[in-house]
Amino acid sequence: MEWLVNGRDQLLDPSDRGLAYGDGLFETMAANRGRIRWLDLHLERLADGCRRLRIPPLDEGELRAEIEGRLPSDERAVVKLIVTRGSGARGYRPPARPRPTRILGIGAWPDYPASHYTEGIVIRTCTLRLSESPPLAGLKHLCRLEQVLAQAEVEANGADEGLLLDVRGRVVGGTSSNVFAVRSQRLYTPRIDRSGVRGVMRRAVLEACAREGIDAAEIDLEPEALRAADEIFVTNALVGLWPVAALDDLRLEPGQLTRRLQRSLGYPDA
Amino acid sequence: MEWLVNGRDQLLDPSDRGLAYGDGLFETMAANRGRIRWLDLHLERLADGCRRLRIPPLDEGELRAEIEGRLPSDERAVVKLIVTRGSGARGYRPPARPRPTRILGIGAWPDYPASHYTEGIVIRTCTLRLSESPPLAGLKHLCRLEQVLAQAEVEANGADEGLLLDVRGRVVGGTSSNVFAVRSQRLYTPRIDRSGVRGVMRRAVLEACAREGIDAAEIDLEPEALRAADEIFVTNALVGLWPVAALDDLRLEPGQLTRRLQRSLGYPDA
Repeated sequence: MEWLVNGRDQLLDPSDRGLAYGDGLFETMAANRGRIRWLDLHLERLADGCRRLRIPPLDEGELRAEIEGRLPSDERAVVKLIVTRGSGARGYRPPARPRPTRILGIGAWPDYPASHYTEGIVIRTCTLRLSESPPLAGLKHLCRLEQVLAQAEVEANGADEGLLLDVRGRVVGGTSSNVFAVRSQRLYTPRIDRSGVRGVMRRAVLEACAREGIDAAEIDLEPEALRAADEIFVTNALVGLWPVAALDDLRLEPGQLTRRLQRSLGYPDA
Repeated sequence: MEWLVNGRDQLLDPSDRGLAYGDGLFETMAANRGRIRWLDLHLERLADGCRRLRIPPLDEGELRAEIEGRLPSDERAVVKLIVTRGSGARGYRPPARPRPTRILGIGAWPDYPASHYTEGIVIRTCTLRLSESPPLAGLKHLCRLEQVLAQAEVEANGADEGLLLDVRGRVVGGTSSNVFAVRSQRLYTPRIDRSGVRGVMRRAVLEACAREGIDAAEIDLEPEALRAADEIFVTNALVGLWPVAALDDLRLEPGQLTRRLQRSLGYPDA
């Protein structure tokens, strides 16, 4: 990836609170032909995160110009934007007048297999249980060590994605995705007010459902209820929607509602 | 603070996983007259953390030489050592062969009031509840956003330190310290197998108790039991031991066992 720190081709001050304490937020975005998909939703989530963490908001116009001015015009790219509370005195205490650091990375598009969209992916339940932290739930903050340890399990077991439960045993989502279950033509996805990330694609799916009259609900989702689903799919802003073809020992077929939402939201995005 | 990244006066690669995911550990240490107090315990905890997170261990001899070679010979200093899993491909997946980054910061000694040692400090219970994460409990990892939000509460209410409870309402420790309660000449401190940091000074206190025949136990500590204590003190590797003079509306006197442990461990450290 190529990186800009505060708009310049420079490295990061080691006293930055993003490094010291995970005191910041990030967005991972899909760029295609010089545009970022779901940019409004990404910037809205980022602004909401800054508000919740009391990090001063960035100027949205400048941010858009900085991002879009750097995108390759003719190829896909992954764009990562990190916003931290900046540097400050030693210690957890947030500085009284923080000067946020923005870190923009643009890198090559990963080659996801086409079969992930058509046939679906294999997910396996991780043994790691996510902690519950209502003040941080939903935020795409930088404290991601649980996800790192969970993803190491996924690498070891050869699945495409891990399924994460919380400490009480409820479904939270995938290691890098949100998860949806379809049962009797109704859509269910876990609440994310205690753990998990409020995914941009999760929101896009729920809004598509509202537009198209598809019944959708955010619920406490038990693993047994997920296993009883007719269809399961996962979402994130990079890949869009992937059907789940296997959850542990359970086999599934990509279903009608999954296909409909893929088409409706334009995935795979050629 | 002055910083060295991998032994050189340079800045940090923004792709470092310490920034991206809090994928690393840190130690905050007290230097005096060219030596670091409790260096063995710090390096042991760091090595244990690397083992648990599967970060390759650093060469301890090199690390000692790098740290001690940089200390001011005649004044106190705060030394911060950060070890991350290094840079890696985008995504949570840890690289197969990580090359850890070590980041060493040396800064001015904070002027703690002498009265913190003699009269004690004021602590207040934070409203934020710490999450439970057994795989991360005890580690001094970089994911510290909960502590940042808690410390912001402390700044707002004017206390010297915050008292943190977990999501189940049990005492975990201070925002930057471990906490001890004395009742009928027995010492109690919270277990830290679900939340909290295995403090270097916490260990030094427990080892001093074992040496000196003081009865000490790690327990599930309820706030009511803490309030019923004869003495309360907090510890960390920078300050040593501070008596607690007030916990919310409760007033306390620095007690006999607190004084004995301060003397035994050499605090205040002139």
